[in-house]
Amino acid sequence: MPRLALGLEFCGSRYRGWQTQQDGVISVQETVEKALAKVANHPVTLHAAGRTDAGVHACNMIAHFDTDAIRPIRGWIRGTNSELPHDIAIRWLQPMPEAFHARFKAIARRYRYVIYNQPHRPALLNGQVTHHYHPLDLHLMQQAAQKLVGTHDFTSFRAVACQSNQPIRDVSHLTLTRHGQLIVLDIQANGFLHHMVRNIVGVLLEIGEGLRPIEWVDELLAVRDRKAAGITAPPDGLYFINAYYPAEFELPEVTLGPVWLNIDESLK
Amino acid sequence: MPRLALGLEFCGSRYRGWQTQQDGVISVQETVEKALAKVANHPVTLHAAGRTDAGVHACNMIAHFDTDAIRPIRGWIRGTNSELPHDIAIRWLQPMPEAFHARFKAIARRYRYVIYNQPHRPALLNGQVTHHYHPLDLHLMQQAAQKLVGTHDFTSFRAVACQSNQPIRDVSHLTLTRHGQLIVLDIQANGFLHHMVRNIVGVLLEIGEGLRPIEWVDELLAVRDRKAAGITAPPDGLYFINAYYPAEFELPEVTLGPVWLNIDESLK
Repeated sequence: MPRLALGLEFCGSRYRGWQTQQDGVISVQETVEKALAKVANHPVTLHAAGRTDAGVHACNMIAHFDTDAIRPIRGWIRGTNSELPHDIAIRWLQPMPEAFHARFKAIARRYRYVIYNQPHRPALLNGQVTHHYHPLDLHLMQQAAQKLVGTHDFTSFRAVACQSNQPIRDVSHLTLTRHGQLIVLDIQANGFLHHMVRNIVGVLLEIGEGLRPIEWVDELLAVRDRKAAGITAPPDGLYFINAYYPAEFELPEVTLGPVWLNIDESLK
Repeated sequence: MPRLALGLEFCGSRYRGWQTQQDGVISVQETVEKALAKVANHPVTLHAAGRTDAGVHACNMIAHFDTDAIRPIRGWIRGTNSELPHDIAIRWLQPMPEAFHARFKAIARRYRYVIYNQPHRPALLNGQVTHHYHPLDLHLMQQAAQKLVGTHDFTSFRAVACQSNQPIRDVSHLTLTRHGQLIVLDIQANGFLHHMVRNIVGVLLEIGEGLRPIEWVDELLAVRDRKAAGITAPPDGLYFINAYYPAEFELPEVTLGPVWLNIDESLK
């Protein structure tokens, strides 16, 4: 059956996360599957590059599904977007070879985490940034972050409920930049453990506040104990921004989100 | 009675606009008045620099009220913010001389209008930008906008229901800049007629699409007829970003919003 891939943008605030669960709370996955099914005129099953937690957003979540339905590309996109709620939209859609698989063929995933570092809480962007009112020392956070780049055992940064069969991940970059009142963390790895980005942010926030030294990161990597690390930062500021695949699959190049950050140039 | 001024940030999507009306739909004004009243322990009446329509946002709406209550500044701000819903927040608050009046002493108001110029509709920032899927020619829009700078009769850009007693306004600047997929209009004037910014945007969108020549603006200024102009652009992309007062009142300098635009440098 022909295979189609697509890129999704969504605001996760109203959803229990990407994955459909048995608890009756609506997921992004089932919402998109239902909209696609109306256009395809048959049930659709989506496979995504990653699973996001409740409240986490995405700028280019890549997924695929199989269908016999023949529709023009614009018909798929416009038809599905008109069925989707206002906080989910398809950005692009294209036919793919059968060898493509959004989850198993992905060689890297990339996230951004946006911290609103200001005394008063945000009224605009509420739910789409993480408010931190204590001043943060960006330079300390950057130095600490560099210790996480490379291949490490991330057990201390992994949710207790994490189902992955091993805790080693390869972080290819981890940068922090300030843009006015926003601090943006940008991280890419071959894969992520459950809560890994939010747990890294929790540790960097404590270091940025001066509550812990940068060497705390070395300790945490060595001790391999989730209880030794900091809080799990809120989902509000977290965005799944891209997944990467072998060049042969010719995925479209997209502007990295969230769109309003408009910082591609400085982070490329 | 001592007078206090404050700066408000709010997302207008859930509100019928700034002003309290008799129709039972909640307004920003009454929401803030109720929160302040809890901290002041008496009823509060707010006077604001401008009135925003339903769905319009603000980054630094300036207002004042009178109170006998004695509270530390931080107590006012934190106490009121904890009473306010998530989409409204006080940014600053300070004592003012009795001669200050947020509406009558304002010598200029400033708005920004954010257009998301992209084929697919936004999922993030839904309700906080105006989506326009036809490509826009920024240069044409900039040339047309320059014709509106200065003192003009804005009758063609004024809502039929506008209650102002005269249609002459002095536009001190009107710029359009592109930031990635966003086009940002920044306009300052001594005052604005009802729907004036949204009606200007409606005309500039038609010119940017190439549907009308830039000289259409000259015609509209001359003909003084609302029916001759374009649509009223949606409220979603509109932000009240500041009001200006004589220097003697010493209002605080704030970062111009919306915070996520982070474009102060390029527009100052």
